[in-house]
Amino acid sequence: MAAFSLGLNSFVVPMSMHAENRSRLTSSLSTQNAIILFEGGSAKERNDTDHELLFRQESYFQYLFGVKEPGFWGAIHVQSNKSVLFCPRLPAEYQVWMGNITTPAQFKEMYEVDEVLYVDEMESWLAEQEASTLLLLEGKNSDSGSMFVPPKLPNPPANLTVDTSILFPILANQRVYKTDAELALMKHVSKVTSLSHVATMRTIKPGMMEYQAEATFHHYAYFNYGCRNFAYTAICACGPDPAVLHYGHAGAPNDRKINDGDMALMDMGAEYHCYASDITCSWPVNGRFTDSQKIIYGGVLEAQRKVYEILKPGTSWVDCHRAAEKAILAAMVSLGVLRMIEGVTLDEMVEMRLGGVFMPHGLGHFIGLDTHDVGGYLPKFPERPKGPGLKSLRTARTLDKGMCLTVEPGCYFIDYTIDNALADPSLARFIVPSEIDKYRGTGGVRLEDVLAITGDGFVNYTVAPRGIDEVEMVMGKGGKWPPVEDKYPELRREDLLTM
Amino acid sequence: MAAFSLGLNSFVVPMSMHAENRSRLTSSLSTQNAIILFEGGSAKERNDTDHELLFRQESYFQYLFGVKEPGFWGAIHVQSNKSVLFCPRLPAEYQVWMGNITTPAQFKEMYEVDEVLYVDEMESWLAEQEASTLLLLEGKNSDSGSMFVPPKLPNPPANLTVDTSILFPILANQRVYKTDAELALMKHVSKVTSLSHVATMRTIKPGMMEYQAEATFHHYAYFNYGCRNFAYTAICACGPDPAVLHYGHAGAPNDRKINDGDMALMDMGAEYHCYASDITCSWPVNGRFTDSQKIIYGGVLEAQRKVYEILKPGTSWVDCHRAAEKAILAAMVSLGVLRMIEGVTLDEMVEMRLGGVFMPHGLGHFIGLDTHDVGGYLPKFPERPKGPGLKSLRTARTLDKGMCLTVEPGCYFIDYTIDNALADPSLARFIVPSEIDKYRGTGGVRLEDVLAITGDGFVNYTVAPRGIDEVEMVMGKGGKWPPVEDKYPELRREDLLTM
Repeated sequence: MAAFSLGLNSFVVPMSMHAENRSRLTSSLSTQNAIILFEGGSAKERNDTDHELLFRQESYFQYLFGVKEPGFWGAIHVQSNKSVLFCPRLPAEYQVWMGNITTPAQFKEMYEVDEVLYVDEMESWLAEQEASTLLLLEGKNSDSGSMFVPPKLPNPPANLTVDTSILFPILANQRVYKTDAELALMKHVSKVTSLSHVATMRTIKPGMMEYQAEATFHHYAYFNYGCRNFAYTAICACGPDPAVLHYGHAGAPNDRKINDGDMALMDMGAEYHCYASDITCSWPVNGRFTDSQKIIYGGVLEAQRKVYEILKPGTSWVDCHRAAEKAILAAMVSLGVLRMIEGVTLDEMVEMRLGGVFMPHGLGHFIGLDTHDVGGYLPKFPERPKGPGLKSLRTARTLDKGMCLTVEPGCYFIDYTIDNALADPSLARFIVPSEIDKYRGTGGVRLEDVLAITGDGFVNYTVAPRGIDEVEMVMGKGGKWPPVEDKYPELRREDLLTM
Repeated sequence: MAAFSLGLNSFVVPMSMHAENRSRLTSSLSTQNAIILFEGGSAKERNDTDHELLFRQESYFQYLFGVKEPGFWGAIHVQSNKSVLFCPRLPAEYQVWMGNITTPAQFKEMYEVDEVLYVDEMESWLAEQEASTLLLLEGKNSDSGSMFVPPKLPNPPANLTVDTSILFPILANQRVYKTDAELALMKHVSKVTSLSHVATMRTIKPGMMEYQAEATFHHYAYFNYGCRNFAYTAICACGPDPAVLHYGHAGAPNDRKINDGDMALMDMGAEYHCYASDITCSWPVNGRFTDSQKIIYGGVLEAQRKVYEILKPGTSWVDCHRAAEKAILAAMVSLGVLRMIEGVTLDEMVEMRLGGVFMPHGLGHFIGLDTHDVGGYLPKFPERPKGPGLKSLRTARTLDKGMCLTVEPGCYFIDYTIDNALADPSLARFIVPSEIDKYRGTGGVRLEDVLAITGDGFVNYTVAPRGIDEVEMVMGKGGKWPPVEDKYPELRREDLLTM
């Protein structure tokens, strides 16, 4: 069986996973007399230099073919489901610098496709095919707003009519529904990510620097599980920094000293065979929550619980978002920064978009080959909603079996959103300025799980400590993880005790 | 004093280093009535997704301005040496996702320039300048063969005539000569890299995987010294893999199991404030050299020594390469894979390019902001030589004070170069086929130091174990590093005992 694996104990991904992805695609296309053609990613250099960046395959190509090398093309004959890879023809000197030249026959065995030819043979192969349509991918990524641009063929084959409209909505939507093989891989990457978070919680102490958390996480996931790439730049935020949602970028490079009393918000995810995890843990850097930290953290955990009560096929993702906001608003009332006004319910406060003050991002997103995975907004599915918080939702779809998502409620004290709310009388009346001022500069809390929707609910692939007692136990001396007992079965952490 | 630093104990780089680079440039230009304009690097995404790659500044822009954020432009008025940065104007919502918006006044303080304006003010600023020429950079990188493309201005100022020919040869050549501030930084990065190599030597054991060396190295340099980026993809080669010169790329991802008896070749370099190190250590994975490993390793170390005997201002780099080859050929004679032929000296064997069989790469390269730093081949300097090995030299220049280079002799058993030599009667007569066959598949050895040319010789910034006894000591139980005594003063490892 051909497979990808990096390392002694690393997870084995069978190439049959990609064959299944190809079969699902060809069987769902009504245009049978067609060839699907994809260009794989190419090696890139740093600016004008010869510094070659570590190649990571383009996600659609990875999905269909699982090829780790740059410079490939791939084709699928729809009717026969026959798959062909086209590999670069390399000069003999290549072996001195880059290693033995893999032959087409060896690639055929490695990637379990029907045929492997050289890229320079592709156009003549296309010209020989009994088909009338050449299907290329073209469409807009709804998270980035960028177009997936179809490849340009130097000499388009005269026998084939190019179509760039059919493939995108079908393939992007197919990626939303994971197969069992993909789910097994998603579960593995989230287990690795969870354990790397635990290692980070145990290593980081007051007096260290935020970036040392990033270093610890990366090392644990790579050294132990062969995760060479990461799903995104690590967010290692302490003190006020958790209030910056995408902290950790080059302009704010996790460079603060960690102080006793800080809350840490660590949003980090490994990647394996180009499949992503995306988990956030929040914890007091000295290992013990204060009373107010317990209220804020408890509110975010309660938001996850409320979402999990309704997380199943048929539920709208927008309703999940609202459920999370409601729990967070309730916690803000308990904390004293919000006041209830007679005659106005929490649900009505949610409708006024008060939740967007504390959680200005969406509840979560699809996840798979991309951290913000494709398919969030597609033709024939619900459009992007409006209003603070809601407009940031990366999908408004109804949940369905096989979807993988993150659930990541958060509660932050952000000057910009607080000041905007205080300037808006309809929202300001709920806020207690003297109380909310106490929390400015204290950051915030986010808890983010990766999970999959099942036939009647969901399974949680995140096996990190979540209960306040669990967090304090893991950060204390000799605190074991995984635990000996699952005290929070409502979180549905799969195989928590036996992982 | 404005400075860059990441971390508690990380190295502090003063912004005056960049001011000095700007002054050197303006004072060396004969075109005084001019403005120099540069576009800094921009943030990039992974393909069509919103996965933002970790930004690393473009090297020329970093050299002149030291700005860590994307989206900047920079200008220098040549006559006055006045420096101006142009920063992006960010929307207010930016602070929710990316953090507090740094004001122009704050950037002015951070980067110690004379003025900071917004990018959208740049064109009107240019139009107001009393100057006649706009100098832009354009030229070919001699390592990659790629062009540095000058930035495109939407509305080029009518008052200025664009010139793209003056700047490149002067600025590329200036980068070859490091200032004292740059040398201090180069020394620091190579110290970090040396110590991270030592940590790797102590961690890796037979039975582990090659990539675990990469994980160990990265972690040590980042966790302890704030090196978030690396100078290039780590080459962690064991067993036969050292014979693949650029092993470790995505197609050969350091994925072999390490076996007892293997030699390891670890070519890894940290980066700090965009300045690179590039050090290779080779060692027996079980901690003890065999007799034949001692001959091969000893030959490569002797090649370094022979180079160091002549490494000073006035020496041609091509002669250094030849000196290294000669030592390696001598070791191959000792090993028994080469035979001496009566009437043919080692020097003549070098001239026949026999050295290229065992060392098909150049002796080393300039290093600085880029691992293969600019200025190797420029107008008015020696052209690229011909012949195996020599043609791979990244410069043929005469050494001069202030140059930073790597010296990296190697000796490999590569089927491709051996078979080519056996097919060439003029080379085959020196080879003992039955002996060389014993070493096929055993990889090879490389030793790579980073050093700087001084007024009368050089200083070596590489403080890694080099002597066979040093390597065995460090890999043994309780082996201390740095050592208590410098037994190899001829390697000129600066501050070895006191680092």
